[in-house]
Amino acid sequence: MPKISEKGHKMPSSPIRKLVPYAEQAEKDGKTVYYLNIGQPDIKTPQIALDAVKIHSLDILAYTRSEGSENYRKKIANYYDKNHISVSHNDIIVTTGGSEALLFAFGSIMDADDEIIIPEPFYANYNGFSTASSVNVVPVISKIEDNFALPPIEDFEKLITPKTKAILICNPGNPTGYLYSKAEIKKLAELVKKHDLFLIADEVYREFAYDGVKHYSILQEDSLKEHAIVIDSVSKRYSMCGARIGYLVSKNKEFIQTALKYAQARLSPPTLAQIASEAALSTPDSYFTDVTEEYVQRRDLLISELEKIDGVKVAKPKGAFYCIAELPVKNSDNFAQWLLESFSYENETVMVAPAAGFYSSPNVGLNQIRIAYVLNKESLKKAVKIIAEALKVYKD
Amino acid sequence: MPKISEKGHKMPSSPIRKLVPYAEQAEKDGKTVYYLNIGQPDIKTPQIALDAVKIHSLDILAYTRSEGSENYRKKIANYYDKNHISVSHNDIIVTTGGSEALLFAFGSIMDADDEIIIPEPFYANYNGFSTASSVNVVPVISKIEDNFALPPIEDFEKLITPKTKAILICNPGNPTGYLYSKAEIKKLAELVKKHDLFLIADEVYREFAYDGVKHYSILQEDSLKEHAIVIDSVSKRYSMCGARIGYLVSKNKEFIQTALKYAQARLSPPTLAQIASEAALSTPDSYFTDVTEEYVQRRDLLISELEKIDGVKVAKPKGAFYCIAELPVKNSDNFAQWLLESFSYENETVMVAPAAGFYSSPNVGLNQIRIAYVLNKESLKKAVKIIAEALKVYKD
Ligand SMILES: Cc1ncc(COP(=O)(O)O)c(C=O)c1O
Ligand SMILES: Cc1ncc(COP(=O)(O)O)c(C=O)c1O
Repeated sequence: MPKISEKGHKMPSSPIRKLVPYAEQAEKDGKTVYYLNIGQPDIKTPQIALDAVKIHSLDILAYTRSEGSENYRKKIANYYDKNHISVSHNDIIVTTGGSEALLFAFGSIMDADDEIIIPEPFYANYNGFSTASSVNVVPVISKIEDNFALPPIEDFEKLITPKTKAILICNPGNPTGYLYSKAEIKKLAELVKKHDLFLIADEVYREFAYDGVKHYSILQEDSLKEHAIVIDSVSKRYSMCGARIGYLVSKNKEFIQTALKYAQARLSPPTLAQIASEAALSTPDSYFTDVTEEYVQRRDLLISELEKIDGVKVAKPKGAFYCIAELPVKNSDNFAQWLLESFSYENETVMVAPAAGFYSSPNVGLNQIRIAYVLNKESLKKAVKIIAEALKVYKD
Repeated sequence: MPKISEKGHKMPSSPIRKLVPYAEQAEKDGKTVYYLNIGQPDIKTPQIALDAVKIHSLDILAYTRSEGSENYRKKIANYYDKNHISVSHNDIIVTTGGSEALLFAFGSIMDADDEIIIPEPFYANYNGFSTASSVNVVPVISKIEDNFALPPIEDFEKLITPKTKAILICNPGNPTGYLYSKAEIKKLAELVKKHDLFLIADEVYREFAYDGVKHYSILQEDSLKEHAIVIDSVSKRYSMCGARIGYLVSKNKEFIQTALKYAQARLSPPTLAQIASEAALSTPDSYFTDVTEEYVQRRDLLISELEKIDGVKVAKPKGAFYCIAELPVKNSDNFAQWLLESFSYENETVMVAPAAGFYSSPNVGLNQIRIAYVLNKESLKKAVKIIAEALKVYKD
């Protein structure tokens, strides 16, 4: 029997996937399961985006240009302009989700065995994209005590080797909810310029910044012109994860030309989804005000309820819709499984994501979970109640 | 300024892309350009597929399962069953085009520096996917004199090293139009079993088999159970290239589990496109009869017109919608550019794909072009007339 690759063996499974069979069984057993484990918002997609694919008059569903249709890219540039980021449509490549943008970026700037430094905990799939690209993640730890703020620059500097090609941040952070300040971005800018590295910022949650704080993009940092690569996506912004549209944005022309070759090899991003995403750019501002308001209320409720539980520690998110909570358990992986398999409160239970999957260092974050507050307030409240009751009886 | 990767430098540009500016200029100069260079059919997408996205009632455009929705995969299994291929929906992963299926397959079975043997000329983007995966293409030449039939098995065998992990064929072939016989598939089966290799068959043109000859899939070869990996796609079958839906099909469970980890990392294939593609499976048989009839007529016209030209040699395609023609020129790259830049006949000209981009060996196929017969007969006839007139005056 022919063998699969070492890389294939190393590819991480989704940290959430393992628990799915338990959740399915729990439902079969008649329990209601509150899903706090995935970043699939319950918010409605803007009607204007859904309508766009209903009223089109295509008779051939053809490939678009590999970099995305020109019209659409011009409108995206316009969106950035409104957000105080000045880029041209030529600085943008439309990708199949932020996921593909990450893959193109990794392939364009790293060879096999190169290194990328990422503050952990981080979006678990960065591990997958790194393995797929045969490169190594070098984690630098950020702490729940600091709300997952940027680790000291010395911590990064210690890890830089000749193989280091880039630093990757997620801003605001999944799974941390941390929003980097302008001062933190400036520190990173100094660092990448000093060592001639790329700075990749995954800004897919850019619009989800709370408490009146403005998101500061690495593209606003003029001196980063040649260094900055932004990963963006319509998935969360317009609650259209299934469209599979994202973008790669950079003013580094050589980088864009290289990424374009990856884009050409796979021919084109999805056409119908581009139609929907282009229309989504005309979503009225009130949609975002409402959505932000909703998430802030959910966050406030979630944090205050969690903080009421003995032994639970939470980092208050300033953006995105995730939070990391430390629980009075030894191993949150076992706890999460037990919640689905062996526990229920009023015939309901909860599915959470064990946080270990978001760390690349071994044996870190074992007592943490990630909660995605993508459910309405009533459900969130019930879900936290279930966790509280569960912790009263759980023994590990 | 930070540097891009060696891999990024090595990524091939699309062999067609280079000529695009010349074509655009020709149009600006008021010339009509017949595009024979790309595999974007002019055939209408089945109405049933286009309608499906108009009548859906989604209010959240959500991620689907990473392997594609279960319903859709069951219907795909059913499609194969009707085509005398027995697979279960668990043997199928829905991908973002055949392109992504190729990437997942390469990543699942090859590590950096591994080798894959491919009969050339081959689909140019196999080079791109190989570079992206840091693996090496080892070409085995097939000849226009033999209509691009399978090269002798000894030619393959000579090239097998410990680094060889797979053989990749395209059946029917882009750019050759060659349809492998059952006997040829059986020879390849023996070979891969003897050397314990994977056999990847890109069968995206499976429905385009002419002259009453039936396509024989590697999945019909029982003994290949653990070895066979099929790449498939809705792009050409239903003339819906812009959907970006393809599949990976294999009965090798370890392979499918590995590919699934790649699929999970990128979350999900496009949702709207899955809706359209699922509906496309109900396209009436008459659609395919009509399309096949149309392509056969185009092919017959194209070949007979090309054969009338002095010094032109053509391999008669038995499938797909491409053909390779040898021209009485030294360098078809220069010829193709000259056609756009400096030639016109009755104010019209033609864009063809120089065939060198479909070879991985250097300096092979320099006098060949690939023609995609994706235009109606009248246009095709005019296009060949233009080539004939051009060859009368061209000097290289
Ligand atoms: C931080 C982060 N980056 C990127 C992605 C990829 O999303 P998509 O490919 O849907 O754009 C996600 C999805 O959850 C994410 O959380
Ligand atoms: C031989 C072959 N394989 C794969 C593909 C990829 O097509 P898609 O990604 O649109 O399914 C193509 C497209 O032209 C092709 O010709």
